Amino acid sequence: MTATGTPSLAELRDEVAAANRRLASAGLVSLAFGNASGIDRDAGIVVIKPSGIACGSVRPEDLIAVGMADGMTVAGTLRPSSDTPTHLALYRRFPSIGGVAHTHSTEAAAFAQAQLPIPCLGTTHADHFDGPVPVTRALTQAEIGGSYELETGLVIAETIDRLGLDPLAMAAVLVASHGPFTWGATATDAAVHAEAVELVAAIARRTLALAPDAPPVGESLQRRHFSRKHGPSAYYGQGRDRHGETG
Amino acid sequence: MTATGTPSLAELRDEVAAANRRLASAGLVSLAFGNASGIDRDAGIVVIKPSGIACGSVRPEDLIAVGMADGMTVAGTLRPSSDTPTHLALYRRFPSIGGVAHTHSTEAAAFAQAQLPIPCLGTTHADHFDGPVPVTRALTQAEIGGSYELETGLVIAETIDRLGLDPLAMAAVLVASHGPFTWGATATDAAVHAEAVELVAAIARRTLALAPDAPPVGESLQRRHFSRKHGPSAYYGQGRDRHGETG
Amino acid sequence: MTATGTPSLAELRDEVAAANRRLASAGLVSLAFGNASGIDRDAGIVVIKPSGIACGSVRPEDLIAVGMADGMTVAGTLRPSSDTPTHLALYRRFPSIGGVAHTHSTEAAAFAQAQLPIPCLGTTHADHFDGPVPVTRALTQAEIGGSYELETGLVIAETIDRLGLDPLAMAAVLVASHGPFTWGATATDAAVHAEAVELVAAIARRTLALAPDAPPVGESLQRRHFSRKHGPSAYYGQGRDRHGETG
Amino acid sequence: MTATGTPSLAELRDEVAAANRRLASAGLVSLAFGNASGIDRDAGIVVIKPSGIACGSVRPEDLIAVGMADGMTVAGTLRPSSDTPTHLALYRRFPSIGGVAHTHSTEAAAFAQAQLPIPCLGTTHADHFDGPVPVTRALTQAEIGGSYELETGLVIAETIDRLGLDPLAMAAVLVASHGPFTWGATATDAAVHAEAVELVAAIARRTLALAPDAPPVGESLQRRHFSRKHGPSAYYGQGRDRHGETG
Repeated sequence: MTATGTPSLAELRDEVAAANRRLASAGLVSLAFGNASGIDRDAGIVVIKPSGIACGSVRPEDLIAVGMADGMTVAGTLRPSSDTPTHLALYRRFPSIGGVAHTHSTEAAAFAQAQLPIPCLGTTHADHFDGPVPVTRALTQAEIGGSYELETGLVIAETIDRLGLDPLAMAAVLVASHGPFTWGATATDAAVHAEAVELVAAIARRTLALAPDAPPVGESLQRRHFSRKHGPSAYYGQGRDRHGETG
Repeated sequence: MTATGTPSLAELRDEVAAANRRLASAGLVSLAFGNASGIDRDAGIVVIKPSGIACGSVRPEDLIAVGMADGMTVAGTLRPSSDTPTHLALYRRFPSIGGVAHTHSTEAAAFAQAQLPIPCLGTTHADHFDGPVPVTRALTQAEIGGSYELETGLVIAETIDRLGLDPLAMAAVLVASHGPFTWGATATDAAVHAEAVELVAAIARRTLALAPDAPPVGESLQRRHFSRKHGPSAYYGQGRDRHGETG
Repeated sequence: MTATGTPSLAELRDEVAAANRRLASAGLVSLAFGNASGIDRDAGIVVIKPSGIACGSVRPEDLIAVGMADGMTVAGTLRPSSDTPTHLALYRRFPSIGGVAHTHSTEAAAFAQAQLPIPCLGTTHADHFDGPVPVTRALTQAEIGGSYELETGLVIAETIDRLGLDPLAMAAVLVASHGPFTWGATATDAAVHAEAVELVAAIARRTLALAPDAPPVGESLQRRHFSRKHGPSAYYGQGRDRHGETG
Repeated sequence: MTATGTPSLAELRDEVAAANRRLASAGLVSLAFGNASGIDRDAGIVVIKPSGIACGSVRPEDLIAVGMADGMTVAGTLRPSSDTPTHLALYRRFPSIGGVAHTHSTEAAAFAQAQLPIPCLGTTHADHFDGPVPVTRALTQAEIGGSYELETGLVIAETIDRLGLDPLAMAAVLVASHGPFTWGATATDAAVHAEAVELVAAIARRTLALAPDAPPVGESLQRRHFSRKHGPSAYYGQGRDRHGETG
């Protein structure tokens, strides 16, 4: 930690590398799909996985540092992830977030391809996401043909904004025909939310197979579970370092 | 063992820690959802996982000891699992049980979210549970807004009582929109039943996909299998330490 | 090997222990469901897993030796698997088989619970089983209430006989509401067939989800694949020790 | 590398052995189904797995070398994979490919058994395959009864040709009632495509379960994703050694 309580760049690299490896160890990435990043807000620097490197083997020194505003590389010789413009768009639009993750994990990608939000059918979901996990509209031809990765970030932000959501209470969006993007206060939280969105999608798919009209959890149960772990009245965990754990 | 044949507190801690780790090694817990506990009935002390600690890494000395009657911590510095009041309610209502476990395992959680009991469709189920695994009614707004975790335990007990079940013959209940709680004579048995309820839910979902009207096993087959392993005429295993094994 | 080319009892113990461990390492057994055995036809002795011991940890010296004709233990101090009478019935009725295995593996058990044969929908199936894998009729009340495990073996044999099948060409039967029993020339082959029946059930369930009217493979393709690996014109593998491998 | 930039035979053996092991480590092969090969175009030699050897344990020195034109063994004492004539047919018909792989992986085999192409429902698919992954027609009785493995290769080539596809842009075909064959510029690429076809089949099956009428991705999104990684305007990865990685 620096004197101001924000992590140093070395600490940020350590955390972002660990978040990338967590995506792999949690079984969320095949064929090296997927990436995680973190931001140093004071410096305006985003640290992200290089393109074409498997998440499971990312070391702190492999990461590429780019400017949040312009995307220019400030450290590292490899090309940053091709999804970098998506990450940067999210950091610019959501000042409260400190990390972003992206996977093509199977269950969440299926909802994205079906262009359906993941309904909030139980407390596993409510513990992590304050309502259904939304899906974006399809990108337009112009958006696809233009700055595609940037537009992907913008349509995620548009989805959160259109629904009036707080990005820290709904830290995941499914990009239509693509897959989940998640974020959080830190890169670790972003990876935890990538794990959570896959888990709730997996349970939701099975629930809908058993009961196509399964009811969403009521407002009161949803609120109770979400507030057990988040916000001023949280009573879950040991007071800090909760990172999505429950129990 | 103490002179009275009940385990010492140190033995209880060892068993409860192992039961928590078993939930993890059996693949039943993601994101550190889940917890297991055990009770020393003579002392009225329940030993349980701390909140926010992953099941897979629980050591005996990490566990928190709380009074069964009042839930006050008697040993340990961390906060006990936020589900502790649920466990305590079960210990108070079911004097025959010695351990409790809770997971959000995917297949069992899907039945819980669908608010459907797991039908007894085969001998895998009948070996472990003496009939369909029931699902609770939904909690009321008042229950959710009040002592939520305590009410969760009460609605589980209500479900067992309403159906006139012996808690050692039906050692699992699905909490509606939530997930499975299981128990048994020991913490190990509770963990075994957590594994069993996931397995039978997994097979049941696949069975219903193949044959939506698949018939429940007949009474005689159900009774035969359950009594092979449980009760006075059991002939499975080596006479003790059966812990759910078959074969 | 002995002078007559049959394995010694020590070799049989090694193979049967390995077959039990293979059931575990292939992910076919949870909660220690499952067991494998092998027979010394010259001596009339069957070597089988003890009851209540996990498949994954079976050592040669753990196995119990029982007489094929009477089921009396001739070596070992533990109780043999409670399914021993089923195994013995199969050895008595099918003189060509040298090993038997039993699991509750999820995908095959689902077909058993649905009381549906596994249709032969592709070459993976045809490589191992010469037609649909049959399911038994339900046991009668009298059979369940009587010598249940023996009757289980008899209804398997009845199923093979009723369909006019060669037990080495159809080395698996699903017991209704229960799960798969498999066999083969050796205990290793029995374990391979346990793996094969789970694999073909897994693919069949997914196929039927995509195309409920998916056609069975034609007679000529089925015959071609089965005879690639079995019988006088087999040209797969290295001439011996094929044990279900392909490719 | 040799002076001409093509790999030496020793390098080819190393790569082909690694490709076979990758099929195993990626969970694509059970019971030793599956095989991978690579070709030395200058020498007209194909290096392939021996029949009946598990993919996971293939060493470079185990591989069999056969002539592309006549299939005669030029190095190695074991019998080559029984699927060798299929591989050779593909090498003869597609001069641009350098490696071939074959598995019975569960999700892709289900589409093959359902005799349905895998629709292009998302960017995971579009990143790897330039359109739906096609399924062959069923083989005729004459083809099955004749040079079956050769005919399997011919019907794959016929499928690619009938649809007017470039084999490097559609590096997979599902053989009806059988399973996927994949290929690529190298044996490594062929194995990557085997992994990719299983992944996209897994997501597609789940998508169709959630939304039976899920729309294929539009032409522009498909083209954008495929061309991010393939062809002259690719901007993904570090410029070489991309091997299907993304992110």
